[in-house]
Amino acid sequence: MKLCVSSDLAYTFQSDTHAIISIQAALAPDQKIMSESLHVEPEADLVFDAPDERGERRFRACFSGDVHIRYEAIVDNGLRQELTPTTHRHTWSELPQHALPFLMPSRYCPSDKFMSFAQRQFGHIDQGGEVVIAVLEWLSAHIDYVSGASHSGTTAEDTFVQRAGVCRDFTHLGISLCRALSIPARAVSAYALDLDPPDFHAVFEVYLDGGWWLVDPTGMVPVKNLVRIGIGRDAADIAFLSTSSGCELIEQTVRVVTSPNQRTGSGTSV
Amino acid sequence: MKLCVSSDLAYTFQSDTHAIISIQAALAPDQKIMSESLHVEPEADLVFDAPDERGERRFRACFSGDVHIRYEAIVDNGLRQELTPTTHRHTWSELPQHALPFLMPSRYCPSDKFMSFAQRQFGHIDQGGEVVIAVLEWLSAHIDYVSGASHSGTTAEDTFVQRAGVCRDFTHLGISLCRALSIPARAVSAYALDLDPPDFHAVFEVYLDGGWWLVDPTGMVPVKNLVRIGIGRDAADIAFLSTSSGCELIEQTVRVVTSPNQRTGSGTSV
Amino acid sequence: MKLCVSSDLAYTFQSDTHAIISIQAALAPDQKIMSESLHVEPEADLVFDAPDERGERRFRACFSGDVHIRYEAIVDNGLRQELTPTTHRHTWSELPQHALPFLMPSRYCPSDKFMSFAQRQFGHIDQGGEVVIAVLEWLSAHIDYVSGASHSGTTAEDTFVQRAGVCRDFTHLGISLCRALSIPARAVSAYALDLDPPDFHAVFEVYLDGGWWLVDPTGMVPVKNLVRIGIGRDAADIAFLSTSSGCELIEQTVRVVTSPNQRTGSGTSV
Amino acid sequence: MKLCVSSDLAYTFQSDTHAIISIQAALAPDQKIMSESLHVEPEADLVFDAPDERGERRFRACFSGDVHIRYEAIVDNGLRQELTPTTHRHTWSELPQHALPFLMPSRYCPSDKFMSFAQRQFGHIDQGGEVVIAVLEWLSAHIDYVSGASHSGTTAEDTFVQRAGVCRDFTHLGISLCRALSIPARAVSAYALDLDPPDFHAVFEVYLDGGWWLVDPTGMVPVKNLVRIGIGRDAADIAFLSTSSGCELIEQTVRVVTSPNQRTGSGTSV
Repeated sequence: MKLCVSSDLAYTFQSDTHAIISIQAALAPDQKIMSESLHVEPEADLVFDAPDERGERRFRACFSGDVHIRYEAIVDNGLRQELTPTTHRHTWSELPQHALPFLMPSRYCPSDKFMSFAQRQFGHIDQGGEVVIAVLEWLSAHIDYVSGASHSGTTAEDTFVQRAGVCRDFTHLGISLCRALSIPARAVSAYALDLDPPDFHAVFEVYLDGGWWLVDPTGMVPVKNLVRIGIGRDAADIAFLSTSSGCELIEQTVRVVTSPNQRTGSGTSV
Repeated sequence: MKLCVSSDLAYTFQSDTHAIISIQAALAPDQKIMSESLHVEPEADLVFDAPDERGERRFRACFSGDVHIRYEAIVDNGLRQELTPTTHRHTWSELPQHALPFLMPSRYCPSDKFMSFAQRQFGHIDQGGEVVIAVLEWLSAHIDYVSGASHSGTTAEDTFVQRAGVCRDFTHLGISLCRALSIPARAVSAYALDLDPPDFHAVFEVYLDGGWWLVDPTGMVPVKNLVRIGIGRDAADIAFLSTSSGCELIEQTVRVVTSPNQRTGSGTSV
Repeated sequence: MKLCVSSDLAYTFQSDTHAIISIQAALAPDQKIMSESLHVEPEADLVFDAPDERGERRFRACFSGDVHIRYEAIVDNGLRQELTPTTHRHTWSELPQHALPFLMPSRYCPSDKFMSFAQRQFGHIDQGGEVVIAVLEWLSAHIDYVSGASHSGTTAEDTFVQRAGVCRDFTHLGISLCRALSIPARAVSAYALDLDPPDFHAVFEVYLDGGWWLVDPTGMVPVKNLVRIGIGRDAADIAFLSTSSGCELIEQTVRVVTSPNQRTGSGTSV
Repeated sequence: MKLCVSSDLAYTFQSDTHAIISIQAALAPDQKIMSESLHVEPEADLVFDAPDERGERRFRACFSGDVHIRYEAIVDNGLRQELTPTTHRHTWSELPQHALPFLMPSRYCPSDKFMSFAQRQFGHIDQGGEVVIAVLEWLSAHIDYVSGASHSGTTAEDTFVQRAGVCRDFTHLGISLCRALSIPARAVSAYALDLDPPDFHAVFEVYLDGGWWLVDPTGMVPVKNLVRIGIGRDAADIAFLSTSSGCELIEQTVRVVTSPNQRTGSGTSV
């Protein structure tokens, strides 16, 4: 599956405002960036952060006045694999060091509070893949997707009690349950095909059998149709725009389509 | 100042339990490890994590039955400097990439909620060092040190409302306020001279003028008398012992003294 | 001051829904109801609750389909007095029994958490009226009135941390601080003159010197311009509409004007 | 069943402290007080509050120095009936006015947050008694009784997430679920036979079929073995001792035994 993803963001910054922007496709073995372009108008001094193990790509800048940011990429998810029930889990000692922070509770994922529930509900399941799939099925059976059910401060604890949320809330609760079961889990912002209305999507990934496996806890988007952007402990880490002071949104458009040459089956590489 | 630090930890693990242990002195330009020893009985297969930018040193193991862990080190803090009011702050764009995660809210430090208060109370102060010192003075004037005032789930928000806490709570509130003011701040567990009763201590450090500066928000221990151990977003990251399932504490002794050769002034290197 | 108050409420109830409606002016020595009318269309079997000590008047009904409720009253606030700094406070033993529940924490007013702060900030003030006025001044100096700053779950604790809120939030924080200082305080929904945009208002009252004194913690409306409706521990008790299941709002209009004969100065009693 | 209940409380009050004491058996149709005595040493000016509909009996006093309070009563629970599955529930309009406050959320029972869960889990059950029994069975199946699992600020929301608590936590969660299902529910402090270790117990009661029915959500004590003391919205209302400032506990002994004449079967009335 080749996807053509793009975002168009326009803001007004009243005064010199520092910003961190996370809209570029992440580097990952299972999502190959075929082409991409990034335009910022007017020109600004962009600081590109080096991708670390997570593959996340962000840039920083100081903006003022009207700013227009446009990103476009063609991404090949051909190597993406779906989690299977038999995917093996690791003990703490076997985990690579970079996975350890994703075992710990975070701002919106207080996994420490879910130890008893997770153990009661999922503790009898042995295989790592099976555990994660059981968590996803539990979310689907017990939490309603309700637009407007949450706000910027909503945590996994709130969602667990109130039994309703949006993609971000499903993600936080799914992550919390996995961490409470000793499976490293981290939040991922993503471009997603056929999301209605189109927007950035929130999903998560778990570390099993030597790699990170993407899952969509809302069940709305097959993993082949997702392109990772930001990757972090929870929504606090992966905002597409963080600013040191306020700004006014003028326009925000996110678009994801299958790449044209794929639809025609021409096989031409982009 | 040379400090001789040690910890003696004894636990009983009922069944095979994975553990992360964080009791070794961290690597940092301002704390030079002169000598150290680590003994685990019975022998176990220890996985030593490579220190990253933070300098934190942790090891992992799978334990069962009675386990005794003993660590001892002599550390020279001679290069440790105290934060001064004029220490320069960085804009977001100037910060090194490794400092960015410490601008974000975390499990016990929901800095996003303190934006208005921090701005009202400290927003007029210009210099970075002066801001942090003002935060420390505010904590000292408004929060009481009260043993037993908090529990393992207590957040900076709870402490801000209840106006009482222990070292961990002072640390979480101090970090939250600094992050809300765009100053990277992170939690540090530490060996501390003359703490009464002796125990691991919790303090924090801020990123200003190209480096991390240690501060003790309780005001109890001069920074020269601290030896960093774990370093992370908040207490969730820096526990001296994390386990995949429960264990029973048998004994825990923490000891910090000034190094003998220093007291006699003999100057003999250890 | 004579006020003419009215509310027009229209809803659609999908199925038989039980409702408690609180829109009538309360009975109180300092607000004399000169005339009033209540119309419900279509006709329903209204259960009028007897006003208790609080003077609150509510009615209950089972609704289905489109329902229109209209209430109108002329109320004379001529006897309403403003709290003065020297108004005397009572010890617990002196308080009338009916005031005791309003010393206790409630859903949105966890006064138990504010004991230390209240004592530090206001504990040195002796006179009851002076204490309450100091609380109001503190609110005005430290909390911003920001539309949309809160949601239906926001507590006094949230508002204290986030330093912003609407009338309901100012009320909850004011009540919490008074209760933490051993002054009975309760929430009041009210008709308010010159509120912009017109809406139901939330204020509170404190028990001092043998009576309940109204105050507006937002400072927006002089107490002579308020007409009490519901009275309870906090917003959970005084909703103008509570329903056993959902309903759809069609229209809600609240109107408060000075009574016409007053504006012409004719002196004719209504 | 006749029970002989007693409590012995000894405190030291540093300065003049106002206190509300709730240790006397409540008045209720299903618990007949056969005899009772109350002694306070040294003598104090006790203000006895008149029992309202709830039947709760409290007294207030101003204490200083060492105070010893001793209460003893013989109570006949012969008329106490157990809730049965077919016990009829009321619509909001049918409820007596005095039951309405116990439909609303309170400090430790934020029933508003449990609407979705309660509806999903119990919404299909018709009969009132059956609903409440299903709630009790759910508590028993999903929450562990764990001493020390909670603290004074723990709410029903915390307990629902953490899946562990003590009698007070079971009570708060049970009340929250019943209120979310439109069944009035209120907290009751009680003397309880065979509680180990002996202490005041927390249970709750629900309003069904024209009366209040006691239930013990921990399942530890049959309702015939309970004697109601305080009755309120939640633990905030029914503390056996509330004080305007601190005091030091010297001794607290609670004792409940079956009345001797009952054990010998002599039939002599007390």
